[in-house]
Amino acid sequence: MEIKEFFPIWDKMTAGQQEALVSGARRQVLKKGTVIHRDTEDCAGLLLLEEGQLRAYMLSEEGREITVYRLLEGDICLFSASCMIRSLQSDIVIEAERDSRMWVISPGVYRKLMDESALIANYTNEIMASRLTDVMWLMEQVMWKSLDRRLASFLLEEADLEGSGSLKITHEMISNHLGTAREVVTRMLRYFQSEGMVRLSRGAVEITDRKKLEKLGQI
Amino acid sequence: MEIKEFFPIWDKMTAGQQEALVSGARRQVLKKGTVIHRDTEDCAGLLLLEEGQLRAYMLSEEGREITVYRLLEGDICLFSASCMIRSLQSDIVIEAERDSRMWVISPGVYRKLMDESALIANYTNEIMASRLTDVMWLMEQVMWKSLDRRLASFLLEEADLEGSGSLKITHEMISNHLGTAREVVTRMLRYFQSEGMVRLSRGAVEITDRKKLEKLGQI
Repeated sequence: MEIKEFFPIWDKMTAGQQEALVSGARRQVLKKGTVIHRDTEDCAGLLLLEEGQLRAYMLSEEGREITVYRLLEGDICLFSASCMIRSLQSDIVIEAERDSRMWVISPGVYRKLMDESALIANYTNEIMASRLTDVMWLMEQVMWKSLDRRLASFLLEEADLEGSGSLKITHEMISNHLGTAREVVTRMLRYFQSEGMVRLSRGAVEITDRKKLEKLGQI
Repeated sequence: MEIKEFFPIWDKMTAGQQEALVSGARRQVLKKGTVIHRDTEDCAGLLLLEEGQLRAYMLSEEGREITVYRLLEGDICLFSASCMIRSLQSDIVIEAERDSRMWVISPGVYRKLMDESALIANYTNEIMASRLTDVMWLMEQVMWKSLDRRLASFLLEEADLEGSGSLKITHEMISNHLGTAREVVTRMLRYFQSEGMVRLSRGAVEITDRKKLEKLGQI
């Protein structure tokens, strides 16, 4: 993907702004499992994801995790450039969930563009608003939705991302996505199995009744 | 408070922008308990809180609540103008928690200013980033912090807001702030009382050992 494809506002930018974005960007490849942002101090830059998948998650002092959102092809990661925005302070971790390829735009270059262009500042605003919407959505899920429904939705989402109903995923990994204990996930998966919705094997979950899972997730 | 006091960037704005803000604003008074924003469709405008206190909370389909943040004197409310920002979609409710007085800037006027001024767009960006930081902070609390610690922090925060250790608040109200069941709050408050941290009476909680509560809240 070219840089301009990440910016629907590209044609409204000046030639100078387009040039600044292009020359301020470099390509980076991340192996699955690489952490690109951990502390508020990290500030690699704006990430434009060409290929692969990034996972943004919160980490407790005790090492528990919860997935806040995923970034897919065509998405822009703002948290990895959080030093650009003074009021954005959060210990979110960003990790490559698959081998990934991306453009990295230096925070200095991008900040300068935001300062001079209302168009670019407002586009950035929209990206932030959509992350805020994601976090509020997750908050609602965690607060009001029971774990069986969250687990059903999660399995379906994973199947869509993988393009397959056979998921290579451990109970531990699932618990880290959902921010709950492994034992609770195991118990719930066994219940799903007894209801014919999944088949469990070592390190894998196979979806056997998609419709039933969908019904449960949507309640 | 004058409108310019809400904008640290005031002196960098053009005279035309200052004039647009002033003439696009009207004063509004809200009685305690009034809801000013409920649906995504509501779009009263940007609220500049001169006096009083607003509470932003999430509401489940079953009527459960959790306080997401409070707005105090000098704060700006962006969610009440969410129609300005396409990607900002969330069913947050905003209610006057005390009698409040505010400036309301029409969303059309403000959107126009954001579109023409990078300065104003970036300032708006900072406000949004700070709400995003608040929501992520709350998420961390809800996920990783036990209820006794959240309750201790909440009581201390209320005492600071009220300027008094004698809080006129019911267990029901506390449970709506914390997003938990009333019975759980009652049980925890009774435990706090048995530990000498609070004294309970009808519709009131009095803090009797601030230090002990602080210690519990900070763990």
